[in-house]
Formats: sequence, structure tokens, C-alpha cells
Amino acid sequence: MRAVDLIRKKRDSGEHSREELNFLIAGYTRDEIPDYQMSAWLMAAWIRGLNSAERASLTEAMLNSGEVVDLSDLPGKKVDKHSTGGVGDKTSLILAPIVAAGGINVPMISGRGLGHTGGTLDKLESIPGFNTALSLQEFRRVLKECGMALIGQTSEIVPADKKIYALRDATSTVENIGLICASIMSKKLAEGIDALVLDVKTGSGAFMQREEDSVMLAEVMVDTAKRMGKKAVALITDMDQPLGRMAGHSNEVIESIEVLKGRGPKDLRDLSLELSAWMFFLGERTPSVDEGRRLAEMMVASGQALEKFRQGITLQGGDPHVIDHYSLLPEANHKLDVSAATAGYLAATNCMELGIALATLGGGRETKEDKIDHGVGLEFHKRIGDRVEQGEPLVTVHYNSTGKLDEAKARIAGAFVFSDAKVPEKKLIRRMVGA
Amino acid sequence: MRAVDLIRKKRDSGEHSREELNFLIAGYTRDEIPDYQMSAWLMAAWIRGLNSAERASLTEAMLNSGEVVDLSDLPGKKVDKHSTGGVGDKTSLILAPIVAAGGINVPMISGRGLGHTGGTLDKLESIPGFNTALSLQEFRRVLKECGMALIGQTSEIVPADKKIYALRDATSTVENIGLICASIMSKKLAEGIDALVLDVKTGSGAFMQREEDSVMLAEVMVDTAKRMGKKAVALITDMDQPLGRMAGHSNEVIESIEVLKGRGPKDLRDLSLELSAWMFFLGERTPSVDEGRRLAEMMVASGQALEKFRQGITLQGGDPHVIDHYSLLPEANHKLDVSAATAGYLAATNCMELGIALATLGGGRETKEDKIDHGVGLEFHKRIGDRVEQGEPLVTVHYNSTGKLDEAKARIAGAFVFSDAKVPEKKLIRRMVGA
Repeated sequence: MRAVDLIRKKRDSGEHSREELNFLIAGYTRDEIPDYQMSAWLMAAWIRGLNSAERASLTEAMLNSGEVVDLSDLPGKKVDKHSTGGVGDKTSLILAPIVAAGGINVPMISGRGLGHTGGTLDKLESIPGFNTALSLQEFRRVLKECGMALIGQTSEIVPADKKIYALRDATSTVENIGLICASIMSKKLAEGIDALVLDVKTGSGAFMQREEDSVMLAEVMVDTAKRMGKKAVALITDMDQPLGRMAGHSNEVIESIEVLKGRGPKDLRDLSLELSAWMFFLGERTPSVDEGRRLAEMMVASGQALEKFRQGITLQGGDPHVIDHYSLLPEANHKLDVSAATAGYLAATNCMELGIALATLGGGRETKEDKIDHGVGLEFHKRIGDRVEQGEPLVTVHYNSTGKLDEAKARIAGAFVFSDAKVPEKKLIRRMVGA
Repeated sequence: MRAVDLIRKKRDSGEHSREELNFLIAGYTRDEIPDYQMSAWLMAAWIRGLNSAERASLTEAMLNSGEVVDLSDLPGKKVDKHSTGGVGDKTSLILAPIVAAGGINVPMISGRGLGHTGGTLDKLESIPGFNTALSLQEFRRVLKECGMALIGQTSEIVPADKKIYALRDATSTVENIGLICASIMSKKLAEGIDALVLDVKTGSGAFMQREEDSVMLAEVMVDTAKRMGKKAVALITDMDQPLGRMAGHSNEVIESIEVLKGRGPKDLRDLSLELSAWMFFLGERTPSVDEGRRLAEMMVASGQALEKFRQGITLQGGDPHVIDHYSLLPEANHKLDVSAATAGYLAATNCMELGIALATLGGGRETKEDKIDHGVGLEFHKRIGDRVEQGEPLVTVHYNSTGKLDEAKARIAGAFVFSDAKVPEKKLIRRMVGA
């Protein structure tokens, strides 16, 4: 087999076999196939597409480029959730303790934020001492002890993805559904899970802004998981406005703890419970999603989920007192309101702009090397459909440096669209795929 | 400007500006743009295509990656011919002296053979002492003195092409009409010519086997030349069978000299005179192509073309006595006939197979590093439409080593197709483009 022939095949819209994709990915990972051949293949695949069988084969080939965590010695089902990312999306911090408290293992390997989105690891690291860089051995030990572990990508897991992603970034071959799917699914399936619940965001703050694109990505990921013998469903959920009222790192940890205490904003609570319900159902802990939802509610109401979070924080080296004393989390020094210039009904937000505004303040990264300021954040006071009077605060900005404050304020002020007539509220869960 | 954005633009079927293509080619030639970005762009361009303006801009950008020969101080018009290559195609050796004898400068920078096709340089190098590796300064001197000079690609001329071609070869992005056009035309226009006659081969021994593909390539090349202010026409000519009766290096030199002596096979003579006629006409030496043809015939009949070839050989260090003593050329040690297994009319030849058979015997290259055996060759006895009796010789093989003789014989025997009914002869010049 030769790479040049595989490039030609995809160029001419041919379908790759499992063996061919394995040859390509294994060869590239071992530096036997050069970057320039891989990038030509990526462009051909970007333009010609990958069908269902090819997506599964590519995912499998990438999965097999590194270590696959074997959790078969751990009793009970292992279920994870993956979100495509957005602004204020902190459900991992809430559902991991809920689901672990309910008796399902949650082996969660997460990413960091990039661009306008936040990352689970970054949020957890605002908790003093919390260590997300566990070895796979430590990961396994924490998981065994408390049923949940939240760590970052290790070099043993899907090394092909890191190499291919860097190449895609430099060659304009990122936004392709088959390549995105293989990148996500190979990393998730390397966790050794039995089932996966996908939260595919749609709207102005999502990578896929159009609902039909989100649905297509969801279908492709569910299809790939099933082809690889895993249970999977996807919820298509709203990202036309931030999830919850808080964005930023300390801010989002606090809001997550609030939900675990039975409080917090309704949208965040509802989505966290719904995702937990599906995890219980796919993990065969409950015979229906409805019963899964009841179990999730019970885990919150009884305080068991909160205690699980406390245990998880402790086992990963974090200070569990943050749960009772939010002031132990990094806090920004200053606050400032951005208020409505005119009265009206909030009709839409440019949610990506809000994410970029937060990153501008230091609460996000433009490049992977940037440092995060965990204390800065945004507090949202209005949701789509709300009546807003002139001069009413839309957003409270928590900031440290005034360097880019004006830019952030301008982005925030420009991100809200008003109308004279009341617009309907946004539906939080738009659709289900694969259920 | 960033390469990644230009890749995206072509990926999305955008049209590049002159500046963009110049940025890409200049950057790649200077190693500022890495191979992996160039190959992604090449694949996008291969699939999405390049329009007329882009082809001209790409040609110009490649041309400007190196030195463009300035022949403006040389009196008279400069006209060249380019052939897309085939089996037995030796017209350059005939028309260069005819046209130079007629008063037009022929500054010819040629390539070597690869695969099933022969190359002008290789053929000339079968003449003892003939030096095709002149510097541009020597090239200019020879051209000034005798009106013709035949050399190989120098590193100063279109360095982008060598680099891009190697990358295309490794990434399955060779066979694209826009990229082929820019590669050919940039090198030809770097010769400092006023006009170009293109001989685009079509049929079983050509790179473009289907006539419509050959016509399309011809149209694209003529269009590009005209956009760059040069006169150009293309003849679409037959390569369903070898041109002339001889293939191989010494063999083809001999057959070329025969034509210059007023003899030789009719098809080779006719095509050489026709191409010369167009060169005279485009070079404004004659007011019509018909008068160009008469002038070409006169140059042969008077012996002036033969004397010009003698002068050219001498000036490039070759032994001019080969013209009168063919035995001074390398000769194969053995001859052997491949004969017809059945009787019938010759209906078709797989001309590429004949070229590969010759290469197999040592008379061609599989890789650019292979050495050529100038003495081996094939002598064709039958043309399409001819009656052949069982046991009649089809091809006389001139060979040195028996190592791959059986393979070559099998290829030759398998390359002839017979029919019971007489088939019409092949038309030599199928079409004109740009006239």
C-alpha cells in the first residue's frame, strides 16, 4: 500500500477500506507518511467527504494510534458526556457528580477552552490545588474510588489526533464533519466507555451555528459510536445565548456548585438533569429516561451529588472548602455593568461575541499557550424574550486589567439585539438524535 | 496575506488574484511556505480547478520564480515548438534546423524522457560529444551563431516548477489541466520567445488519450500564451501509433537525419514540415502557413536544413560526422523480430505499451535517475490499416541485454490489434486550435 495511491483514491471520490485508513493514520503517527502527503489527503477528504463506514474506520484507526483505557476490571457501567462547546457551558461539573453518585462511572477526559469557548479543565483548575494532569494510573485509581475522574488529554491517548489537528489547522481542513467526528469520537472512545451522551450545541455561540449542521454532526457521531459498538444519543441544545447566568472560570464553578445545592438558574439545571438522565438510561441504571431524571433529581435533593463533588475535588488534590466558601476561588478585583442603551425586548444575542469579550479580558485563550485569568467573568442578567428598560444592566463584567476593557465592553454592548415586540423564549433542547 | 487563507479560498472554489498566486509560488520557491500547505493547495486546485485568468497568473508567477531569458538583443523572431510527448516523436530534431535555416531563431529548452515517452535531450545525447548542459550564456552564444540551440532545463529557469512537480508527483496532483498548463507554459515562455507552436498528442501513446482532453489542454495552453502576449497555435496530432518507423535514441537521430536528407517516413516528414510551416507563419517569416510549408520544403530540398543541423551539432560539441556515418552512433548488438501470430488488418496499437517495451530494454527511464541505453530501439514495419500476413515481422527489436527481453517481446506482441476487415488509416493531424 502507498500513501500516494490512497490520496488519488480519495481525490477521485473513492471509498477507503478499514485497512487503508489504518495504514494512513498509523503511518502518519509513526512519521512514515510525511505531512505533505497527509495534508493532500486531508484536503481530498475535506472536499470529497467520508461516508459512514469510512468515518468509523478513521475513528478506529485514530483510536488505535495510542492507548485505549481498559476499565473492564472496574465494576459497573462507564458513561461519559461530550459537548461541542459554547459560552457558559459547565454541565460536566454538575452531571459528573450526579451520575457518579447514582452509581455510574464517569471517566471524563476533557479539553481546554480555545477561542470563544471555555474548557472543563480550565474551570476545574480555578479550584486551588485541583490537578487535571493525572497519569492514566492515577485516573484509574480516582475513578475506582469515587466513580468520577476529570482529567486532560494525555500523550498516550490518540496521539494521531494532536498531530493531525495541527496539520488541519495550518491547511484549512478543520471544518469537515467526518474529520471533526473522528477527532472527537476517537478521544472519547479511548476512555473505555460503554455509552456516550453528546450535547451538540447550535446557535450564535456554537461552532455549528445552523441547526441542520448541528443535527448532521450529531447524526454522524451517533452513527460512528454505534458502528463501534457503543450506545450513544445526542441532544441538540441551544447556544443562541449563554447557558446559565455565569461565564468565566471561578464564576462557573460557583454556579455549578449552586446547581448541586439545588439552586442555580433553571436552564442550566434542566439541561444538567436531562443529560444525567440519559447517562443513567444508557448506562442501564434506570429503565427509562424519565426514571433517570428522577434519580438525578434525587441525587441533588439528597445532597449526594454535592458530597460526590467534594470527594472528587479532594481526590484530585483540590481544596473542597470552596464548596462552602466561594471566596476561596480566585476573584476579579473590579466589577462594572454594561447597560441597555434603549428599551425593548431582548430578541437575540451574538453569543460568540460574548465569549470573545470574556477571552479578551483574560478569561480565554487565543493560542494554546495563553494563560487564563480564572477570576474574570461575565454575569448575564437578561435572557432572550425578557423586557429590558433603558439603562438596565445587561451584563456585569468581573475584570482585573483595564487594558482591553473598552474592547470587551464594546463587544458586549454590540452583542444584544432588541425588538419592540416580545419574541418567544428559546427552546433549550431542540432535538434528540439517536434515541 | 497568509497561505492558510489562500488554501481555504481555493477549497471553497474561490478565484485567486494575480497577487495571491504570486504570493503562493514565490513563497513556496523561497521555502517560506511549507510543503504541507502547498500540497493542500494543489489538491484543492486539482479538484476545484483554475480558470483562464488563474492559469495565466499561475504561469506568470512560476515564470517569475526564476530567470526569464532576454533575447531582445538578438535580431529576428524567436519561435519554439513544444510537444506533449509520445513514442517516436522526434520532430524537434528536424524542425529546429529547418526553421533556423529559414531565418527564425529556435531557442529550445527541452526535457528528458520519462515513463513510456522519449525526450529530445536524450536523443541528442546519443550523438558523441553533444552537450545539452550549456549555461544560459553559452545557449545565447550558440543561438546567435546558428539560429538554433537545444539545451536542458537549467536551475535558473522556473525553479518553482521542479519543486512543485516533485510535490505533485508524491501527492497525486499531476493530471490536472491547469497545473499541467502552467508547468509547460512557464518553462516555454521563460525561453524569451515571441511565438509557440504546440503539438498536443492524442491517442493510445499520449498522456491525454481521449481527443477531447487533448483539445481542452491545447485550448488552455493557447489561451494562456495569448493572455501573456505571445502568439500560439496547437496542432492535435495522432499518437495512436508511433510517429515514424523508429523509436529509440540513435534510431531516432538517424530517422531525423533521413528526413533532413529528403527521405524518411511520410508521417514524420509531413508533421515536421507542418509544424515548421506554422513556426514560419507565427514568426512572420511567411505571410501564410502554405508559404511556410513551401519554405520548409525548400530548406530540406536545398540541403540548408541538413547543413544547419551539422552546424548546430558542431557548436554544441557533437561529432557532425554522424550525419554521414550512422555507425558513429551507439548501436545495439542484437536484433530480433516480433512477428504476427495471425493474419489480418492492423486495426490499432497500444502505443504506450510499445513505449514501455522500449523503456524495459533500457531505452527509457522509470525514475529520473535511471541511465539510458542509447543503442536500443524498436523498428516498426506496419501501420494501422496495413494488411499483415501470419509470420510477417511487426517490429524489429534492437537490444543489448536479454534480461528483460521476454517482457519487452510480450508487451510488443500484445500491443497490436488485428481485424478481419480493413480499417481506415489514422489521420495524422486531427485538429487545429487557436489558428
